[in-house]
Amino acid sequence: MKKIIVDTYEDMSQLATDLIIAASLQAKRINLSLTAGSTPKRMYELLNQKLASLPEMTNVHYYTFDETPIKNQAHEVVGYDNFDGLNESFFKPAKIDSTRIHAMTGDNYRDFPAEIDAAGGLELMVIGIGEDGHFCANMPECTLYDQEVYKVKLTNEYPWNEPYQQSLQGNYSDYMYTLGLPALLKVKKLVLIANGLAKAQAIKAALEGPMTPDFPSSYLRLHPNLVVILDQEAASALT
Amino acid sequence: MKKIIVDTYEDMSQLATDLIIAASLQAKRINLSLTAGSTPKRMYELLNQKLASLPEMTNVHYYTFDETPIKNQAHEVVGYDNFDGLNESFFKPAKIDSTRIHAMTGDNYRDFPAEIDAAGGLELMVIGIGEDGHFCANMPECTLYDQEVYKVKLTNEYPWNEPYQQSLQGNYSDYMYTLGLPALLKVKKLVLIANGLAKAQAIKAALEGPMTPDFPSSYLRLHPNLVVILDQEAASALT
Amino acid sequence: MKKIIVDTYEDMSQLATDLIIAASLQAKRINLSLTAGSTPKRMYELLNQKLASLPEMTNVHYYTFDETPIKNQAHEVVGYDNFDGLNESFFKPAKIDSTRIHAMTGDNYRDFPAEIDAAGGLELMVIGIGEDGHFCANMPECTLYDQEVYKVKLTNEYPWNEPYQQSLQGNYSDYMYTLGLPALLKVKKLVLIANGLAKAQAIKAALEGPMTPDFPSSYLRLHPNLVVILDQEAASALT
Amino acid sequence: MKKIIVDTYEDMSQLATDLIIAASLQAKRINLSLTAGSTPKRMYELLNQKLASLPEMTNVHYYTFDETPIKNQAHEVVGYDNFDGLNESFFKPAKIDSTRIHAMTGDNYRDFPAEIDAAGGLELMVIGIGEDGHFCANMPECTLYDQEVYKVKLTNEYPWNEPYQQSLQGNYSDYMYTLGLPALLKVKKLVLIANGLAKAQAIKAALEGPMTPDFPSSYLRLHPNLVVILDQEAASALT
Repeated sequence: MKKIIVDTYEDMSQLATDLIIAASLQAKRINLSLTAGSTPKRMYELLNQKLASLPEMTNVHYYTFDETPIKNQAHEVVGYDNFDGLNESFFKPAKIDSTRIHAMTGDNYRDFPAEIDAAGGLELMVIGIGEDGHFCANMPECTLYDQEVYKVKLTNEYPWNEPYQQSLQGNYSDYMYTLGLPALLKVKKLVLIANGLAKAQAIKAALEGPMTPDFPSSYLRLHPNLVVILDQEAASALT
Repeated sequence: MKKIIVDTYEDMSQLATDLIIAASLQAKRINLSLTAGSTPKRMYELLNQKLASLPEMTNVHYYTFDETPIKNQAHEVVGYDNFDGLNESFFKPAKIDSTRIHAMTGDNYRDFPAEIDAAGGLELMVIGIGEDGHFCANMPECTLYDQEVYKVKLTNEYPWNEPYQQSLQGNYSDYMYTLGLPALLKVKKLVLIANGLAKAQAIKAALEGPMTPDFPSSYLRLHPNLVVILDQEAASALT
Repeated sequence: MKKIIVDTYEDMSQLATDLIIAASLQAKRINLSLTAGSTPKRMYELLNQKLASLPEMTNVHYYTFDETPIKNQAHEVVGYDNFDGLNESFFKPAKIDSTRIHAMTGDNYRDFPAEIDAAGGLELMVIGIGEDGHFCANMPECTLYDQEVYKVKLTNEYPWNEPYQQSLQGNYSDYMYTLGLPALLKVKKLVLIANGLAKAQAIKAALEGPMTPDFPSSYLRLHPNLVVILDQEAASALT
Repeated sequence: MKKIIVDTYEDMSQLATDLIIAASLQAKRINLSLTAGSTPKRMYELLNQKLASLPEMTNVHYYTFDETPIKNQAHEVVGYDNFDGLNESFFKPAKIDSTRIHAMTGDNYRDFPAEIDAAGGLELMVIGIGEDGHFCANMPECTLYDQEVYKVKLTNEYPWNEPYQQSLQGNYSDYMYTLGLPALLKVKKLVLIANGLAKAQAIKAALEGPMTPDFPSSYLRLHPNLVVILDQEAASALT
């Protein structure tokens, strides 16, 4: 593991942006997988700004790594939790052509690892960490550690489900899909970013705690080329 | 995982030999790590024969992956469990120059992963499996899954220790050293070979059973490029 | 360069077969490019025999590297010089599914390097050498050394054209298509095989002569991972 | 080739800095080779600033790619043209430990490619271009295109020699040493940077002119993963 502690959220965002730009600047097809959510908010602002000053990089393809289709009460899909987030923060502002966006869905998830493999694999993945230790949608209570990809039925046996369903404001989700640990272990460079005090205990557990199924991101330490970028606050509980 | 089931022990040995030869035939420094023991007995006969017909491949270096120093009753080291085995079956008959043999010992084990890293990493590792599920010296009762390398004190709390000490015929061992799971996950191609009915249940547990600390080789499925070569008997319990 | 001199044509064929099998035995999509012609005749016999004893390797895809469409006097394509040869010696006997065969043609050649790139690149290419120094269809008089792929109009300004057209027995070819040097330099492992006294001078020129446009295969020495396998006769002019 | 045209020298320097930082941020030993000279002046200012804000990256080693020992009239070596330049602009201000700096000299140059190979190869090389088309010390009149490394005796048969000797102000150089084309083709990512109108014709010849021994950097197009970063002025002659 390569652990880099920088001063601020801005520094973390800048460094992660550099890694994405550098991975894109190659004379060949490159496949990237980038996290949605609040942690990379500033990263996407910086990235979009930088990409706007560069020629379009048509060699770069994007693969989502998890998804939760959102349905309305008529059981029709009305949104995608992660894709819509990425679309808003990155694909639309950066004007990424849809032919270079590969989104995992309930229809294609079984074949998604093979699709990535047939395109030469993932060069870089940037992920965040949940306070409960989840990475991608590998949650504490339901992670299948030996599966490249899998589907989880969302039920209230998982303590995080009810608040999640409520956040959907009248809509609901019944399944989530995620790449699993073996798929992540195939990525050439895996980057974990975290900032803020709220993440300090999760980072400590992930990087220094026991490797345990109770805390999924503790398994990320197995990755052959894991780069962890933390601001001072996220790193504050580390020994 | 790529699983190849061949007819016989001879076929398994031949295929593993091909993989070693092919990994060696490159226009660059190549680092290999090969198992000792009974499973690869025929493999080394074939390999030694093939290497004898080829020019010396000075680009190939060998790294041992586990070791148990053997001491006499005066507490002096009189042998090395794995190195001596490899020496007998491979290094001596194949006339491998000692400058290209890198043996892990109680003195250098802490730095061994860094030494491998500084030489460009391992291209190929060929391992066997124990009936108890061990790989390298990662034993069921004492594997540290998040350590690249570690040392285990041999005590009778481990059921396998007493028979092992007795097999040393008056000598004894107090420690063993082994590369761990994260070190194996860095190898470009990991090859697991097994033959015979005695290994059938272990192979089933490793490849199809739950991924559990109770059975160390069940974690090998996490490897991004695992090739498993089995004869019919070793594969006979697979579904 | 890694140069291996073996005793006989049989040895050369066996070693090349081992390299193809080893490249195929991986837990991921693998792209190979293999030569047609007389040099690999025995290699394909051994390879077909070996593949027949193994489970179908659906992870392996094949890309042709040059082609000369053959037309009848009504100007209709009636054959493909290289693809038909490969089909006869390898694809048909080895029962390779057509979905895993990617043949370069006059229609797709411009996009062929990008197609290879989008599939993760070529892991292994096995080529021969012409007595006139050509590799793939990079001929002495018309090689474009900086092109990944190109088309050559066949005219009698090239001394080899008239005998070639006559060999087509009433049919003719007007263009040939070939991958060029930059495409070969991207292959992870490039294997050059040659046997027999007739190839001795070409091998000497390729490996020890000046790097000159007059002798295309002299540029192969630029490849970062070139493995040359020769029998005693093909190596007999080397110093 | 991946060609990136940015607005200004500052942008070029920033992008090159990002690539170096990204190559360094890996959980393994990384070998870099960086150019001296005026083109990267701003790049090193930005790089030194960025490295100062990060923890020491002890996984990164540096290899020089060419050298011209400078002698006084008593024939004693009093300086190194490239190493001293790099030392001033980068190694000293960035406080790179000397154990991680590998300088090519007249004593070790023959073994330098093997030394790089035994350390796992170069991940990234950043080079400039001369107005005469040279790269590293591969000069128009004396480049040996098939040599991984070589030595050139400096004589006045080369038009650039006399001005060079005069610039040494009473000292002189008799030999220069350089990595050659085959060594560069082994680098995983080769980055060529250029800025200013003075480089526009050289860039045009290198990227769009004939591939010819008269203009050494025209051969860089053979590299499997060449990234070219230009400001508007350096790119102004491109079609």
